[in-house]
Amino acid sequence: MHDLTLYGYWRSSATWRVRIGLHLLGVGYEYAPVHLVRDGGEQYMDDHIRRNPLGQVPVLTWNVDGQEHRLAQSLAILEYLDETTPGQILPTEPFARARARQLAEMVNAGIQPMQNLWMTRAITAGGADGRGIAREAIRRGLAAMQAECDLAAMLPTSAQPRTWLVGDSPTIADICLIPQLYNARRFDIDLSPFPALTRVDALADKHPAFRVARPEAQPDALHPTD
Amino acid sequence: MHDLTLYGYWRSSATWRVRIGLHLLGVGYEYAPVHLVRDGGEQYMDDHIRRNPLGQVPVLTWNVDGQEHRLAQSLAILEYLDETTPGQILPTEPFARARARQLAEMVNAGIQPMQNLWMTRAITAGGADGRGIAREAIRRGLAAMQAECDLAAMLPTSAQPRTWLVGDSPTIADICLIPQLYNARRFDIDLSPFPALTRVDALADKHPAFRVARPEAQPDALHPTD
Repeated sequence: MHDLTLYGYWRSSATWRVRIGLHLLGVGYEYAPVHLVRDGGEQYMDDHIRRNPLGQVPVLTWNVDGQEHRLAQSLAILEYLDETTPGQILPTEPFARARARQLAEMVNAGIQPMQNLWMTRAITAGGADGRGIAREAIRRGLAAMQAECDLAAMLPTSAQPRTWLVGDSPTIADICLIPQLYNARRFDIDLSPFPALTRVDALADKHPAFRVARPEAQPDALHPTD
Repeated sequence: MHDLTLYGYWRSSATWRVRIGLHLLGVGYEYAPVHLVRDGGEQYMDDHIRRNPLGQVPVLTWNVDGQEHRLAQSLAILEYLDETTPGQILPTEPFARARARQLAEMVNAGIQPMQNLWMTRAITAGGADGRGIAREAIRRGLAAMQAECDLAAMLPTSAQPRTWLVGDSPTIADICLIPQLYNARRFDIDLSPFPALTRVDALADKHPAFRVARPEAQPDALHPTD
C-alpha cells in the first residue's frame, strides 16, 4: 500500500471501524484528526468538504504517481483494503462473505445513521427526543443482530458464528459491531439481552488490533469527557 | 444460481435495488410481496421476522441440497450476486470498485435510513417533522453526490463518471441512485441542482433492466396511490 492518511475523529464509530481494519490487516497509516465538535465541526469546513462533500469522517487518502486517491464511507474503505492487501477481513466462502456483509450493514445502515450527530441534532432541533429515538434504533438493531445469531444454526456452517460473528476470524461484521456496542453503552442501553454480541465484545477486548484502535488510544482523544 | 425468492415491496427502494441487480445480471427469481403498510406491516409478522429479524425487506432466499440460505441487506445481496454470477455490477479495477461502493453507501447509509418508514414515523410520533427532516437528509445527500461527481475529474480515470456514475456500465452506485431519485421526487425535492444525477436517471429510464425493475411494473404495485 502507498502512504495512507486517515482523516477521522477518535470517537467516530465509522473512523474506528477503519482503524480496526487497518490494524487487523497490518497496514500502516498516518492519522489526521478532524474535530467533529469544536468550532461547529471541522468536518463542515472547506478543507474537509473537498475530501468528503457529505461532511463526514472517515476519509482515506493516498497518492500514486502524483495522482490523488480519496475514499469515504467506512465499508467501501474496508472492502478496498481487503481487496488490495494480503490479509483478509471478509470470509473466503461466498455465502459467509455475504453473511458478514449483512451483519455489517445492519450496523452501518440499520443502526448508526439513526444515532449519528447530524440526525440526533436535527430531531432534537425539531422538537422531538433525538436521543430517545436513537436509543430505540440501537436497541431494536442490536436485538435483530442477536436474533440473527440465534437463527444462524439453520444457515450453512461457513456462515455461522463461531469464535467471531462469522467463523473463526474477525470480519467486517465484528469490525462494525464493536464501535456500535460502545455507542450503545454511551446511550445507556442494557446489553444483557444480547449475549451473542457481548461475547464478541469480550473477545475484541483482548485482541491487539481491536485494542490499539480504541477511541481512548487515539491522539485526539479528549479526557475525561468530550 | 439456484431458485431464488425475493421477498420485497414494490415501493421499497432497497428491494428495488436488488430487482435492478437481478435483471442486470440476468438472474431469474420469484417475487414474494411483503406489504409494508397493510395491517400494521407484514414485515413485522412472525413469518417475516424469521426471515429478517430487523423487519425489513428485501430478503433473498434459496435452498441448496435442502439447506436454507437467506440474505438481507440490499448491498450484501448485490455483492453476493456479483460474486456468484457471470455478470458484473461492480467495476473491475480496485479503486473504481471502491468508488462505486462509496457512492452506493452514500445512498444506503447516508440518505435512505433518514427517510425510511420506521424513522419518519418515530420522528413524527415524537412531535417533530419526520417528513421535513427526511427532505433535508435527501437534499444534502444528493448535493454531496453531485459534488462528488464535480470533484471526480481529479480522481483516476477508471473511477470517474462516464456514461454511468462510475465508468461505462451500470454499477451498484447507479443501482442505489435511481430508487433514491424516485424517493426524492415523492418528497418534492427539486432535482435541478443535480444534473450529474438526473443525467443517469434519464439513461436508466431507457435501460431494459432498470425499466422492468420499476415499482409500477411489480405485481404488488398499488394504483393510483398507496
